[in-house]
Amino acid sequence: MNTQIEEQLSGIANQLRIDSIESTTAAGSGHPSTCCSAADIVAALFFGHMRYDPKNPKYANNDRFILSKGHAAPLLYAAWAEAGLFPREHLLTLRRLDSDLEGHPTPRLSFVDVATGSLGQGLSVGVGMALCARLDQLDYRTYVLMGDGECAEGSVWEAASLAGINKLNNLVAIVDVNRLGQSQPTAFQWDLEVYRKRFEAFGWRTEVIDGHDMEEILEVLGAAGVGDQPLAIIAKTIKGQGVSFMADKEGWHGKALSKDEAAKAIAELQPKAKSGLAEPIPAPTQLPMPKNEAPAGYPATNYKLGEMVATREAFGAALLRIGEVDERVVALDGDTKNSTYSEKFYKKFPARFIECFIAEQNMVGVATGFSTRGKVPFASTFACFFSRAYDQIRMAAISMANVKLVGSHVGVSIGEDGTSQMALEDIAMMRAIEGSVVLYPSDAVCAEKLMEQMASHKGVAFLRTSRPKTPIIYNNDEQFPIGGAKVRKQAAGDKVTVVGAGVTLFEALKAADILAKEGVGITVIDAYSVKPLGKDVIREAAKKTNNVVLTVEDHYPEGGLGDAVAGELSVDGVRVHKLAIRELPHSGKPEELLAKYGIDAAGIVKMVKSIL
Amino acid sequence: MNTQIEEQLSGIANQLRIDSIESTTAAGSGHPSTCCSAADIVAALFFGHMRYDPKNPKYANNDRFILSKGHAAPLLYAAWAEAGLFPREHLLTLRRLDSDLEGHPTPRLSFVDVATGSLGQGLSVGVGMALCARLDQLDYRTYVLMGDGECAEGSVWEAASLAGINKLNNLVAIVDVNRLGQSQPTAFQWDLEVYRKRFEAFGWRTEVIDGHDMEEILEVLGAAGVGDQPLAIIAKTIKGQGVSFMADKEGWHGKALSKDEAAKAIAELQPKAKSGLAEPIPAPTQLPMPKNEAPAGYPATNYKLGEMVATREAFGAALLRIGEVDERVVALDGDTKNSTYSEKFYKKFPARFIECFIAEQNMVGVATGFSTRGKVPFASTFACFFSRAYDQIRMAAISMANVKLVGSHVGVSIGEDGTSQMALEDIAMMRAIEGSVVLYPSDAVCAEKLMEQMASHKGVAFLRTSRPKTPIIYNNDEQFPIGGAKVRKQAAGDKVTVVGAGVTLFEALKAADILAKEGVGITVIDAYSVKPLGKDVIREAAKKTNNVVLTVEDHYPEGGLGDAVAGELSVDGVRVHKLAIRELPHSGKPEELLAKYGIDAAGIVKMVKSIL
Repeated sequence: MNTQIEEQLSGIANQLRIDSIESTTAAGSGHPSTCCSAADIVAALFFGHMRYDPKNPKYANNDRFILSKGHAAPLLYAAWAEAGLFPREHLLTLRRLDSDLEGHPTPRLSFVDVATGSLGQGLSVGVGMALCARLDQLDYRTYVLMGDGECAEGSVWEAASLAGINKLNNLVAIVDVNRLGQSQPTAFQWDLEVYRKRFEAFGWRTEVIDGHDMEEILEVLGAAGVGDQPLAIIAKTIKGQGVSFMADKEGWHGKALSKDEAAKAIAELQPKAKSGLAEPIPAPTQLPMPKNEAPAGYPATNYKLGEMVATREAFGAALLRIGEVDERVVALDGDTKNSTYSEKFYKKFPARFIECFIAEQNMVGVATGFSTRGKVPFASTFACFFSRAYDQIRMAAISMANVKLVGSHVGVSIGEDGTSQMALEDIAMMRAIEGSVVLYPSDAVCAEKLMEQMASHKGVAFLRTSRPKTPIIYNNDEQFPIGGAKVRKQAAGDKVTVVGAGVTLFEALKAADILAKEGVGITVIDAYSVKPLGKDVIREAAKKTNNVVLTVEDHYPEGGLGDAVAGELSVDGVRVHKLAIRELPHSGKPEELLAKYGIDAAGIVKMVKSIL
Repeated sequence: MNTQIEEQLSGIANQLRIDSIESTTAAGSGHPSTCCSAADIVAALFFGHMRYDPKNPKYANNDRFILSKGHAAPLLYAAWAEAGLFPREHLLTLRRLDSDLEGHPTPRLSFVDVATGSLGQGLSVGVGMALCARLDQLDYRTYVLMGDGECAEGSVWEAASLAGINKLNNLVAIVDVNRLGQSQPTAFQWDLEVYRKRFEAFGWRTEVIDGHDMEEILEVLGAAGVGDQPLAIIAKTIKGQGVSFMADKEGWHGKALSKDEAAKAIAELQPKAKSGLAEPIPAPTQLPMPKNEAPAGYPATNYKLGEMVATREAFGAALLRIGEVDERVVALDGDTKNSTYSEKFYKKFPARFIECFIAEQNMVGVATGFSTRGKVPFASTFACFFSRAYDQIRMAAISMANVKLVGSHVGVSIGEDGTSQMALEDIAMMRAIEGSVVLYPSDAVCAEKLMEQMASHKGVAFLRTSRPKTPIIYNNDEQFPIGGAKVRKQAAGDKVTVVGAGVTLFEALKAADILAKEGVGITVIDAYSVKPLGKDVIREAAKKTNNVVLTVEDHYPEGGLGDAVAGELSVDGVRVHKLAIRELPHSGKPEELLAKYGIDAAGIVKMVKSIL
């Protein structure tokens, strides 16, 4: 080894420690101790190993770096300042409202691909990036820096398993084992063998090192990419390394140093610090970049009115149809592809399909990874199982990721399988995601057109598909913009505006026929876009029925379609009556359950009469 | 080994296979193939190993059995019929609306402790039960039957890790490695070594066996409880075992046999089937049962009006105060106990505190396990990280579990840490849980009293606590029933009813003062019970302000307080204007963020003026 380089990198590490302490002290909060433990590793990666263009962090073939332990943000910011992306003085704006150097990293910064700060999620994103490198035939590597504490998160092992299965030798995880958690020591402290055994059992090659020995760090990094396994580097480190009164002491997690303490710490670090000598290794040979461009349009659909097709089948057909002209589309599923119908895409484009097995958290994280590389990932499973990945979906939104989620088997209309398989809170959950789009088609034409909207739209979007077959009610040329709604039935003198979506739309239409025979007219609206809600359409219709609205949904009453309509339109004087599932449902036949829980045509008729 | 016993148990296994096939064929749906793979293991457990009273499945010292692979429900039902709990004919009511033999097990059945069907959750519940056995000094053992496919779920490894750390030698996991998933073979098929290595790396003793060899099954079960580690039995099995045309064939997942197929299958199984000879092993010696009774009352609180106390601190104080008189209370945290303040309880009652480390899914599953044993578990972490466990919370509700969740650090009022640490969708998420209670105190008195309500209430309840200190505004004798709301300020001529909760209540009170100076009166309501909502109080107040309501919440606009009020009261003609966080927030000082996103006093004043 070249000891001069090692000395230089160790010097930079100390400079990064100083920067992390200064910035957190200026902010009055933050995590300097965890920055100190990882500083040597980051210095080695950024200035002794990774290949990237420091002036262009977005260049597609740069090596990728994910700070899974997001609370070490000041260290990441210091590294990019050292790399020359922005002046070091900016570091002192840490955590300020006028600075994008936030408490935890977000993609408001050009050099951050994904937001981190909810622990245990970085490795999934890294797996997505590493898989994408393979798909795009790019030779960048992906490095994920993790804390030891976050290795308790199951999502880490979901990701580790998929990386092992896919033999991702372009992926490197580095675990910064600094022994101390937030509130007490970690379960395994410095028992590095525990981490080694776990990663090996999950199909990884491992290296156990001293995370403050620059020679060792560079040596094991030098062997990244060797063999056909991902590499886990288990690094023994000291939290607060370099600062005598903080090193390996409890009580320093998430605590900024006072000005006096900072001065003392810097006095210790300064003699061994170096800066301004760093020269990142240039990005690898310029390779042809993936196009990742949206197509001009999509082939037409060809359904016949009255034909019976489940919207989940239409999703499968659309995924294939869209995927054929849009190379950005990749698909992921959690061993439900024969039920969600993503199987159609898998059979045609196996290289663009990731079987994630029964591990929904990782599936969403991997999708986020693909989205950061310009892809349009569609991840599908039973809608209720997206609840498993709600934190990952939340972080995808904070990451401003372009992730598409498709959940099938919603509501009591799935029937006999019972409550555990019924999504009854998915609309509430997905509506509450910042900036999300929530779509709920009733027929196959609508489902297919909404898939086009999702592929074109940028951001987190959710499509709620149903298990039962439903009749085609729209022509193939009907348009379904995000934020719209369709008036399906309306006549002068209508008494109530009934708003349905999915299976309940058909019940509402049946109810309209029954009520018509009794001389009662109702307006029926298809609220296929639950968020943003087609509120103008609903408001206009409601006006004509004396502002009386009845919503009907195969979902619990909280946060779903009814709350969406009331939440948007009560301000206009609209009075919203709600039919929804108001108890834990039971197994049974779909039609029995719709009836028992009062969301079928008879339930709607009864409710309309009670309103009048 | 006694070969006669083995032969008898193998015969029972075949009878259970027959029952599983008959019941699913009668239902027209279900998972017979997965019942067949696990039948020998279940026969061995139920009739050759576990100690329990078959007439009294709820007896506290029975060995516990959790069918984590819930889709094998027909096998579980068949075992209890064989044990004599109910007549075998009832099995033919499987999946019917009039039968509690649902598609996946739920505690509607006396012999089911927790609902299963969302894979990968049973082991966490088992860990909770095993920990509870230790706490209660009972010698029952807990057996968890898992599928191989579900071992891809990270929650399994969270649970496995905590079991290893706690050396739960009263816990046995059996993995039914039948090689075939729903849509394709599992990643590791019959590579049993993968599972063995993983469990060993997570601190378990392992045994690899042929899951159809009764001698081997009984032998390894006989060594359960030996040593100081939990035991994982990795059993190689054949999906569809015993039925030639189904055994080890793809395409048979989740598929009932036709009547003809069933007849053929039964013809193969019948000659080797035995029934009516089964005699479970009696439950172990009757031990003193834990009391698990609610106390007559709780000690009083002693706050002073105007004192500054964060509601998270009040939670910690209440947990200790309540825990001192209520032995049912146990506490769990995910390495945030110094921030959530559950640390106070931990220091006083370490034996009743479970440090779950950074693994929220498992924490909620363990809490569910404790709740099935009569405890009142309080699990705490940052509120945003409960999104990690949303599926576990959903399943806790389906399990009718008595689980209490306390989430701190909510909304933009946490300040500098940034969006990833801010709970902004937790109210929406928790409201959508069936039967849940969602509470949001503004001051410490209210927080403490709501903790009493939570401890007394049965079911899933969520307390949303805040990071900043807020002034005490209630007297120590104030009562806060679930479903109530408090009018904090009201006068004749008020123009708008402003509904706040938590930090926004204080902003509303400040706004009232500012507006009063300008001659505009507003009513201010503390909506401390978001679900059930104190809707009568709000409705009455709204009536007096011409039905004009303004909700103010430190939460996204979807599914939160505003939607709750609009969703409940629009039907009465109440018009709800909403102030909420309408974009991805940034790091900054709490007061800066409240101002930037328009939920501070100035924002309320502005909105009230624009409404008038």
